[in-house]
Amino acid sequence: MENFEFCNPTKIIFGRGTEEKAGAEVAAYSQKILLHFGGGSIKASGLYDRVTASLKKAGVDWVELGGVQPNPRLSLVYEGIKLCKEHQLGFILAVGGGSVIDSAKAIAMGAVIDGDIWDFYLGKGVPTEALPIGTVLTIPAAGSEASTGTVITNEAGWLKRAVNSDLIYPRFSILNPELAFSLPKFQVACGVADIMAHLMERYFTNVSHVAFTDRLLEATMKTLIDQGPLVLSNPQDYDAWAELMWAGTIAHNNLLNTGRIGDWASHDIEHEISGIYDVAHGAGLAVVFPAWMKYVLKHDLNRFVQWSVRVWNVEMDVFNPEAVARSGIQKMESFFHSIGLGTKLADLGIKDNRIDEMADKCTGGDTRTVGNFVKLDREAVREILLLAE
Amino acid sequence: MENFEFCNPTKIIFGRGTEEKAGAEVAAYSQKILLHFGGGSIKASGLYDRVTASLKKAGVDWVELGGVQPNPRLSLVYEGIKLCKEHQLGFILAVGGGSVIDSAKAIAMGAVIDGDIWDFYLGKGVPTEALPIGTVLTIPAAGSEASTGTVITNEAGWLKRAVNSDLIYPRFSILNPELAFSLPKFQVACGVADIMAHLMERYFTNVSHVAFTDRLLEATMKTLIDQGPLVLSNPQDYDAWAELMWAGTIAHNNLLNTGRIGDWASHDIEHEISGIYDVAHGAGLAVVFPAWMKYVLKHDLNRFVQWSVRVWNVEMDVFNPEAVARSGIQKMESFFHSIGLGTKLADLGIKDNRIDEMADKCTGGDTRTVGNFVKLDREAVREILLLAE
Repeated sequence: MENFEFCNPTKIIFGRGTEEKAGAEVAAYSQKILLHFGGGSIKASGLYDRVTASLKKAGVDWVELGGVQPNPRLSLVYEGIKLCKEHQLGFILAVGGGSVIDSAKAIAMGAVIDGDIWDFYLGKGVPTEALPIGTVLTIPAAGSEASTGTVITNEAGWLKRAVNSDLIYPRFSILNPELAFSLPKFQVACGVADIMAHLMERYFTNVSHVAFTDRLLEATMKTLIDQGPLVLSNPQDYDAWAELMWAGTIAHNNLLNTGRIGDWASHDIEHEISGIYDVAHGAGLAVVFPAWMKYVLKHDLNRFVQWSVRVWNVEMDVFNPEAVARSGIQKMESFFHSIGLGTKLADLGIKDNRIDEMADKCTGGDTRTVGNFVKLDREAVREILLLAE
Repeated sequence: MENFEFCNPTKIIFGRGTEEKAGAEVAAYSQKILLHFGGGSIKASGLYDRVTASLKKAGVDWVELGGVQPNPRLSLVYEGIKLCKEHQLGFILAVGGGSVIDSAKAIAMGAVIDGDIWDFYLGKGVPTEALPIGTVLTIPAAGSEASTGTVITNEAGWLKRAVNSDLIYPRFSILNPELAFSLPKFQVACGVADIMAHLMERYFTNVSHVAFTDRLLEATMKTLIDQGPLVLSNPQDYDAWAELMWAGTIAHNNLLNTGRIGDWASHDIEHEISGIYDVAHGAGLAVVFPAWMKYVLKHDLNRFVQWSVRVWNVEMDVFNPEAVARSGIQKMESFFHSIGLGTKLADLGIKDNRIDEMADKCTGGDTRTVGNFVKLDREAVREILLLAE
């Protein structure tokens, strides 16, 4: 186990009706805020009305910025920064899924600097302060509601890049599983794949003696495998949604990473796919992960065997561990298929061949590697993308 | 799943050599502190020297109060409160195990009030402020290093009582597994039993649809069952200690209680045993739990069956679930025996019969019940103690 420091300061407010607490929570930080959201779904569902009623009740005034798209865009972030500066807003309330929250985090860092927020995403400098933010989560997937991360897409060049900073942990996150009832099935499936991916990125590590967090990660993966199909077959199943939503937060709040070094190559590769083709992040991960696994399998066969046996209930065969490992990967692919996701690039509707371009962008023209479990150069990324064809 | 709020603000600093960070962490809060510890072991091991060197380096001055005993005493708490007031100390650094930390928490609440700190333990009033505290943990057991709880024994009547308050979450806790290398084996075993008990108190609940936290609790119990014997057979096994120490903190930091209602009857009953006989808390729990389980088994047989199958690897027998449940309990007893703990009152050296007295004290002369999974009156507590004979 590696030495580590851990403290997740996000206050989780979980359960039925909890969005009504938004106003009181916000009021502890500011009386004038940016209310940030996506398309019209929160208005259609009545969530917008409930949240704004709660803000009014707490005497909180707001400026609105809707229109966040999946793979949230830098241009809208710039708009949000401008609004925060112009109206001297002291807090950002993100109502939506990971895209809205990631956009809010970018605005929060950008509102307090004179320079260009994109510089942080390019690794030029690190943030030293940020506006406080809070969230009302509507989609269990990205885990951004209790994480340090934000991923933004710059339309100029379709670059998708991330920033991680303790400054952008949300101060509070409101998690009401009922808010997920109306999600389209495809989006639910993408969320499940995203959460699985967060767990697998952490699980596949070269750090030895991580038995406890291995088991916690396995427990969370098993929960997803059990509960994902339940919410897909009955979207009104509060109990299954509650398990899934809480698992999605824990999967990415850094607890399950304590003492470990995660991989994250699959995320980096997927960012190139969704950066170019604008596909849903989770759908892209369901394609990248099986290919990545087949490529890195022999690097640590034992770890794949443990995962297959404990997570996918593959029966141990001590005489043929590789078959056990491959069976786990196959079961994962079947699981993705069963929830309506494809596991090949063609399933994402990608028919042209820009694999070389993606491998290039992912590794900065072969000037850097991605991943930690196995460090992947341009050729390795290319081969993984070919395995996904 | 119940609605819940969760935020654990304790900063965990984990790994080799981390005690050297104590001074810098403390200095963020105060330049003049109470240094609180137990017997001579931290001086013999050199830990005292390393911590005080770190305080000096950070320019932090301290007043010392050693002498905390297992089942920490109210009289020493009073001394600590007096020192804090007299020297206007702004922070308490607890160096030790759960007893030292619990004592520090009591002093932290008592130092800022004019009244008697014991009143809070009797349920007369709740704390509204407290001095900040930090810990350097030497014993994985109580989980007090990241919990809201403190348990103190009042020598006048040998009453052992608890307070829970968000105000007494330590601001930071330093967890260096190396510090546990020199613990006596009996104390290690008691720590393992205490951690198991924290998990089982949470596991046995009447709240339905707690699948995710069930799995997290099972994962943590399995970690203890794997790692406990390793540290007992090789006290220098850093890796096993690291798993055990981190599991001990997570077992009691309230994460695994999210959405659940725990039981806690076994803790209440054990407090009467250790209150009267001054036995080690963990040793007492290893005696109470098997008896409690046999008494409440039929209240929710399915829950016991799940626990037996998943935690203790008992093979499922759908035609005889009660045998499966009883087999789990038996395996737990065998586990306690294997680490050197008894599971009967006589194993604690208790030979007189004060069962009626304990049942009386536990239930306030039959004016209240204890536990949530099954609410136990005086007669039920008595029967459980008889089962432990």
